[in-house]
Amino acid sequence: MPMMTGQQYEDSLRKLNLKVYMFGERVENVVDNPIIRPSMEAVKLTYDLAQDPQYEDLMTATSHLSGEKINRFTHIHQSTDDLVKKTKMGRLLGSLTGCCFQRCVGMDAVNALSIVTYDIDQKFGTEYNKRFLTYLQYVQENDFTCDGAMTDPKGDRSLPPSKQPDPDAFMHVVEERDDGIVVSGAKAHQTGAVNSHEIIIMPTISMREEDKDWAISFALPADAEGITYIMGRQSCDTRKLEEGTMDRGNGIYGGHESLVVFDNVFVPWDRVFMFKEWEFAGRLVEHFASYHRQSYACKAGVGDVLIGAAQTAAQYNGVAKASHVKDKLIEMNHLNETLFCGSVACAAQGGKEPSGTYLVDTLLANVCKQNVTRFPYEIARLAQDIAGGLMVTMPSEADLRSPEVGKWVNKYFKANPEVSTENRMRILRLIENLTLGTAAVGYLTESMHGAGSPQAQRIMIARQVNMAQKQKVAKKLAGIEEEQA
Amino acid sequence: MPMMTGQQYEDSLRKLNLKVYMFGERVENVVDNPIIRPSMEAVKLTYDLAQDPQYEDLMTATSHLSGEKINRFTHIHQSTDDLVKKTKMGRLLGSLTGCCFQRCVGMDAVNALSIVTYDIDQKFGTEYNKRFLTYLQYVQENDFTCDGAMTDPKGDRSLPPSKQPDPDAFMHVVEERDDGIVVSGAKAHQTGAVNSHEIIIMPTISMREEDKDWAISFALPADAEGITYIMGRQSCDTRKLEEGTMDRGNGIYGGHESLVVFDNVFVPWDRVFMFKEWEFAGRLVEHFASYHRQSYACKAGVGDVLIGAAQTAAQYNGVAKASHVKDKLIEMNHLNETLFCGSVACAAQGGKEPSGTYLVDTLLANVCKQNVTRFPYEIARLAQDIAGGLMVTMPSEADLRSPEVGKWVNKYFKANPEVSTENRMRILRLIENLTLGTAAVGYLTESMHGAGSPQAQRIMIARQVNMAQKQKVAKKLAGIEEEQA
Amino acid sequence: MPMMTGQQYEDSLRKLNLKVYMFGERVENVVDNPIIRPSMEAVKLTYDLAQDPQYEDLMTATSHLSGEKINRFTHIHQSTDDLVKKTKMGRLLGSLTGCCFQRCVGMDAVNALSIVTYDIDQKFGTEYNKRFLTYLQYVQENDFTCDGAMTDPKGDRSLPPSKQPDPDAFMHVVEERDDGIVVSGAKAHQTGAVNSHEIIIMPTISMREEDKDWAISFALPADAEGITYIMGRQSCDTRKLEEGTMDRGNGIYGGHESLVVFDNVFVPWDRVFMFKEWEFAGRLVEHFASYHRQSYACKAGVGDVLIGAAQTAAQYNGVAKASHVKDKLIEMNHLNETLFCGSVACAAQGGKEPSGTYLVDTLLANVCKQNVTRFPYEIARLAQDIAGGLMVTMPSEADLRSPEVGKWVNKYFKANPEVSTENRMRILRLIENLTLGTAAVGYLTESMHGAGSPQAQRIMIARQVNMAQKQKVAKKLAGIEEEQA
Amino acid sequence: MPMMTGQQYEDSLRKLNLKVYMFGERVENVVDNPIIRPSMEAVKLTYDLAQDPQYEDLMTATSHLSGEKINRFTHIHQSTDDLVKKTKMGRLLGSLTGCCFQRCVGMDAVNALSIVTYDIDQKFGTEYNKRFLTYLQYVQENDFTCDGAMTDPKGDRSLPPSKQPDPDAFMHVVEERDDGIVVSGAKAHQTGAVNSHEIIIMPTISMREEDKDWAISFALPADAEGITYIMGRQSCDTRKLEEGTMDRGNGIYGGHESLVVFDNVFVPWDRVFMFKEWEFAGRLVEHFASYHRQSYACKAGVGDVLIGAAQTAAQYNGVAKASHVKDKLIEMNHLNETLFCGSVACAAQGGKEPSGTYLVDTLLANVCKQNVTRFPYEIARLAQDIAGGLMVTMPSEADLRSPEVGKWVNKYFKANPEVSTENRMRILRLIENLTLGTAAVGYLTESMHGAGSPQAQRIMIARQVNMAQKQKVAKKLAGIEEEQA
Repeated sequence: MPMMTGQQYEDSLRKLNLKVYMFGERVENVVDNPIIRPSMEAVKLTYDLAQDPQYEDLMTATSHLSGEKINRFTHIHQSTDDLVKKTKMGRLLGSLTGCCFQRCVGMDAVNALSIVTYDIDQKFGTEYNKRFLTYLQYVQENDFTCDGAMTDPKGDRSLPPSKQPDPDAFMHVVEERDDGIVVSGAKAHQTGAVNSHEIIIMPTISMREEDKDWAISFALPADAEGITYIMGRQSCDTRKLEEGTMDRGNGIYGGHESLVVFDNVFVPWDRVFMFKEWEFAGRLVEHFASYHRQSYACKAGVGDVLIGAAQTAAQYNGVAKASHVKDKLIEMNHLNETLFCGSVACAAQGGKEPSGTYLVDTLLANVCKQNVTRFPYEIARLAQDIAGGLMVTMPSEADLRSPEVGKWVNKYFKANPEVSTENRMRILRLIENLTLGTAAVGYLTESMHGAGSPQAQRIMIARQVNMAQKQKVAKKLAGIEEEQA
Repeated sequence: MPMMTGQQYEDSLRKLNLKVYMFGERVENVVDNPIIRPSMEAVKLTYDLAQDPQYEDLMTATSHLSGEKINRFTHIHQSTDDLVKKTKMGRLLGSLTGCCFQRCVGMDAVNALSIVTYDIDQKFGTEYNKRFLTYLQYVQENDFTCDGAMTDPKGDRSLPPSKQPDPDAFMHVVEERDDGIVVSGAKAHQTGAVNSHEIIIMPTISMREEDKDWAISFALPADAEGITYIMGRQSCDTRKLEEGTMDRGNGIYGGHESLVVFDNVFVPWDRVFMFKEWEFAGRLVEHFASYHRQSYACKAGVGDVLIGAAQTAAQYNGVAKASHVKDKLIEMNHLNETLFCGSVACAAQGGKEPSGTYLVDTLLANVCKQNVTRFPYEIARLAQDIAGGLMVTMPSEADLRSPEVGKWVNKYFKANPEVSTENRMRILRLIENLTLGTAAVGYLTESMHGAGSPQAQRIMIARQVNMAQKQKVAKKLAGIEEEQA
Repeated sequence: MPMMTGQQYEDSLRKLNLKVYMFGERVENVVDNPIIRPSMEAVKLTYDLAQDPQYEDLMTATSHLSGEKINRFTHIHQSTDDLVKKTKMGRLLGSLTGCCFQRCVGMDAVNALSIVTYDIDQKFGTEYNKRFLTYLQYVQENDFTCDGAMTDPKGDRSLPPSKQPDPDAFMHVVEERDDGIVVSGAKAHQTGAVNSHEIIIMPTISMREEDKDWAISFALPADAEGITYIMGRQSCDTRKLEEGTMDRGNGIYGGHESLVVFDNVFVPWDRVFMFKEWEFAGRLVEHFASYHRQSYACKAGVGDVLIGAAQTAAQYNGVAKASHVKDKLIEMNHLNETLFCGSVACAAQGGKEPSGTYLVDTLLANVCKQNVTRFPYEIARLAQDIAGGLMVTMPSEADLRSPEVGKWVNKYFKANPEVSTENRMRILRLIENLTLGTAAVGYLTESMHGAGSPQAQRIMIARQVNMAQKQKVAKKLAGIEEEQA
Repeated sequence: MPMMTGQQYEDSLRKLNLKVYMFGERVENVVDNPIIRPSMEAVKLTYDLAQDPQYEDLMTATSHLSGEKINRFTHIHQSTDDLVKKTKMGRLLGSLTGCCFQRCVGMDAVNALSIVTYDIDQKFGTEYNKRFLTYLQYVQENDFTCDGAMTDPKGDRSLPPSKQPDPDAFMHVVEERDDGIVVSGAKAHQTGAVNSHEIIIMPTISMREEDKDWAISFALPADAEGITYIMGRQSCDTRKLEEGTMDRGNGIYGGHESLVVFDNVFVPWDRVFMFKEWEFAGRLVEHFASYHRQSYACKAGVGDVLIGAAQTAAQYNGVAKASHVKDKLIEMNHLNETLFCGSVACAAQGGKEPSGTYLVDTLLANVCKQNVTRFPYEIARLAQDIAGGLMVTMPSEADLRSPEVGKWVNKYFKANPEVSTENRMRILRLIENLTLGTAAVGYLTESMHGAGSPQAQRIMIARQVNMAQKQKVAKKLAGIEEEQA
């Protein structure tokens, strides 16, 4: 089966029977729900671009399983070149949508599993890798979007899974049957969950032997019996329900997160990729995290949109030639490209795992992500500086359209004589969207916590640097002859 | 007449006949409008606290005109002690409301006018100061809230008022009559405008002789004929229209801004405080700006709320003892207190103007505000770090209350076993409110642009430092004997 | 006896019989030693300025003991006005010398002792305060410079004084006699030690009962039997031994630190101000530290010199009009004035102790110092940016004077046609001095560690903020009704 | 001829007849001069490592001219893999020497010339490329170190070369002869100049037609008639003349810069690579600058040494387990690896020029260098934080060795009981060396200005980003349909 078009993707979603709740009520038509739809549009673009010859090199790859052309989001990286293209694909999509396009989690999940299932088999003589590759081929053939789900609710942070008062605080096996297993638990912060065909579950922390019932990985169709989605709400989400489109900021795309609840859900054995091999839970987490920290190149893409918006706002405000404005735009670009450098570097420095999959450089992937927890906030601050206070004090679109006061809104918010007030308001609403509104969720808070909160990266940085070598040279240069410390 | 209670203040607002528009429609009951009311509550607190013996020292002062006890917001500063108390009053109110309480603009306006009307009289032999003090006594006697209105829409930024294609881009005289003047124009970003009894107009930039028709200052009742208010919309504003209160974050207080349009409005002469004395427009702007930059001590108060919320979130998340969390809270406090230092310092270093009014140190007031354009953003970033991603991915209050999914929300977002899920969600919603929602408008974007955008402060810093003295000493220490540069 | 002139001060030093070592050898003539002398010149200026009517208000005060006019460095602060003047005096001297002028430690020591001796007496019925005031009056009458010495070497950081393998790691009583005590130990990092008439010893940490032999405070003449000074070396110190003056950067002033060793030194009882009252060791440390953290206003003064030098370098390089250069100078000023704000604020917010002495606001003093551990480094970085690379690649003064190559140095380092190459080199050498050379020791590293390393301030900030109040309001605004955390 | 060993390199230098001045006097024995020798040792290491199989992959390459194995420093990059190896070689050498090893300038010069000589030929039908490659083969065969010399003194910054009062402000042709040209001028800040066999001259700015006499590039033996070297002095340079080695900090390696004066020097035609093709001056500058901005990966290597020293100091001070110390070390590593990411990224994203040479990505190379103007300063600040104040207040090695006071130095600076005082002092001296001393010149100030001052990179960043594309998408997402700005 060839890759789907965007339209085919949308149609395929309509066939799913997802159980989705929002504002306390069941969402009957998920695809057309005005709050959810922009996020579907962003995923849809990943299908449409894969059909576009202009983007083919970045958006598609050749399956190492089938030899067929596939969407890169379902591909297992076969080289550092593949890794660098992943970085560029992420930035491209961010730069076109101005939001989270949600498919990285699935790509990062299948790549991490391609390594760890192999490693488990090497140690225990199991056949997870084969089972996983069969599943992967199914995904590739159907050109599916997968939700890679890692983050458990975690309950009491001071306790491991097996000690939690509520065992469901981490996803776990509740029953082992001949034909498969039954699981319960939940995954939080699930990006793009209701736009996915499949959901792939991974553990969220390193485990000890007593936690082995929680050391599980598996995949299911997104609408499997017993799965419920509860939508997270975003800043300004309900503006998408209002008449008019201006106040939304980004009139086309968006993201979403949801809590996904598994209430005694059955998983057949051929969908199980880790079962109580607790020794490998940490490795799976670490590999997924490393891939996913690389994925934050997408934020450089979103940064491109914000920079473009800020430059446009400067022009519409009539201040684009002021030296301080130009300097702020340079700073925004500098920080944004520094983010990109981190993602490129960890990809270019990647290496081959025993399974044949290429993995990013772990140290640099963590460095990459750590900067993502900082620079978007500063870029956003500078964008607000350039935008001006009007961004948060201007009236609604309804006021602009009003027969009574529209004339005043129009008259008094006119700045650059060559630009309409409406367009000026539109670009400011986009900056609001990216720095305070629905997209700020993805550009700021998700940059902070997605793929692990900043402290998680710091711990990894401490572990990955070769401090012994640095100290050895320092002592030599200082003339310290005997090791004494 | 004694100072009003909060209830009397609210009642007094009901008597006003304001022409307010929001979402394209006239607001019939301004006081009880759910989007506006939280901002009224914040102003109301400034009345209630003035009645409270605990806060009397900060919240009240003795009028230098009548000798009566008055609300400090209507007071003319008579000493540096008064200035420091102003700083502390601002922080106090910010720390109790977590938002902009809107009354500083009026206080800063009357103080700036008390200086500049005197200076104009000294030069031109006019009687503005006497006229102004009569007006001020009226304000003090009635315990009024005043909107001090400076920012004109400004049209084409490259042109002075008199060269604008639309003369209304800056407020100006359209007719001079025996009994007064008629003015047209607008003031943008007006904080607390629809909670005010009076509106005091000031010019927004330095002017040249050809701009003299724009060099005007005056006061009017807020409901004078010809004035229209168009409400600005804030991030997440409509959450205040939803059922439930959790998702609002701050369940009590808020702020607002509006565009105030003057359409051929009549001003009697006894309300006119500057009339074409263009030479003094810049000085009025500068003094108001200096006072108002000091006023940003309030953001240290809002910072107190955000820090308290972050500490609480850390406890509710079960991570308060982690060393990196404690260190981030220290950093938040450090930055927040640095903001406070700036405001205290410019107050303590203030001096007496010829009129007798005490003015803050201009250099330090600008330094104070410049830090306010930076640190709240970093404090907000750290708060989001501590809060965790759940802040932006958690479901709505309606989901928590839902018979179908409420149980899961409740179960899976439980962390610290001693804290209810609802309370955890509540504190995260408050952090969302302050960093992305309605209060972020005041805490972040207004911190950036209120009282002048950052570049305005930088220009003033450059002007105010004594660079010649610094160079003189540097040259001496370097052994440079002859002045050559 | 009236205050000494600078010359009288210098003469008085010649009468001391200090035992000073440098580069492994005894320094016979301390006052005229070319490496030490610039530091003496800086202290000398504190005497000369006190004679100058222009600076009288800042440099002198009225003794609360004798009613006589005294140098402010020997004064006990009687009001917040005194505290603010202390801040300004420090900045003034820093701005005139471009270095550490060394007298704050003594001033801060006597003020801290004036509080704590009183507090001990109140608790234990002792007479330390009276004894101390008698000593203070002697200091005031003789217009002495005192070294306030706190920092012990501390040995193994994980052990308290009484557990140290070497008991001398902290200064302690080795013998108690009828006429006094005998002490041993050392004080490190002693600023201005060999320019002082007196040395005042204080403990350096909080203590427990078992450490009581280390809980001592006393004063001695700087040349008391058994005291040895070992000079610390500074970056570029030996340039002061070279022919010519250009390469020194600052041709007049400097600072110094030394290790002061006490080898069985006798202290008569009337010079003992704390003797085993271990409960008060921590309070003395904290008060001294708070005062001394305020004292870092001096770095804003040194910053003035560096800013003046950078502005001059920009002019001499011919780039002063570039917008980025102007902006960097604004940033330097902004940061520098922010430092000043912290010192002013903790002074203005000071309060009266039971002894009658005014103490700075402890929280704000720590905030002040914490910024000092950061901003001078950034100001120095910006100064190096403006200076250009020539600052570190230009030849020596000897090359400029050389018959063979002087012509080329002169020719090729000429930039602004109105400025001599020599003057351009001189200003760059001053920037080198302040950012890499002898003065960088004071402006950078001492800013980091003087009055306590940054972590010490962070601990105090955590202790001093009222977190409970912040959390109380946050919970109220979030609608959290019952205390659950 | 095979590659030289380090010893052969040193011997080859002895054969040169360089005219070097320092402190106003001719240096007779350059190689053994104690101030210069450490810089020679650093270059020597680039020869020794090339012989070491462990480093062969990074340190050597295969000549595209001869097919022989050559030192990578003389290689023309034939792939992005070559570019990435260049980045890693730079970091390796920095991490082993803790200083500037000086050979990048020559490597970057030959690579830039390999591109631009080709481009000139394509346009003008000249034969510069062939001539250049012949020269390059000579360099490769002899395994020479080349000084790539770009920076002219520049005189009055507001004037182009042809308008300067002194025509020598930029290197230029003074005579055109049949057998070659005669040139005059100077090159400032020349890193490693007196350790080089050859010097390669390039113009330093874009030029116009009237400046064509200044648009020249050529190569000469370092000891050609008419060339004089005047050594720049560094912070703490003369410590290398003192007895003992401790106070030097880095006991082995160092760097140097010098002013190189050309006084009517003859260049034969076969050494001339650009002659009045003013149109290509800018391109040569830009390509050299891009390569050289990549080269600053070396500072990540020097950062490795400083981080190793700081970790060691923390252990020797006995505070390595404090959470704030660990966190600072993480931050140092994070910043340091971010620098590395920039250099890797611009290499990995490089591309092939028409000449066949691979050039780094210009945008990312500028981003890389821009971070280098910031992060080393912060890393140095953190290192000073960890080191403690003793770094700048401890006595000299002579004091430690002194019969009189050595015992006290030894006793009182003992901290961690398992570490000797001498070793503690040694590691602190290394940190002093890197943050204030001779190595700070390279690690800090040269990081700021080498390969262009920060503003130069900002200008390039502004030029290289595709702002039009960013604005196009921003407008689309905001719903702005017609281009109006």
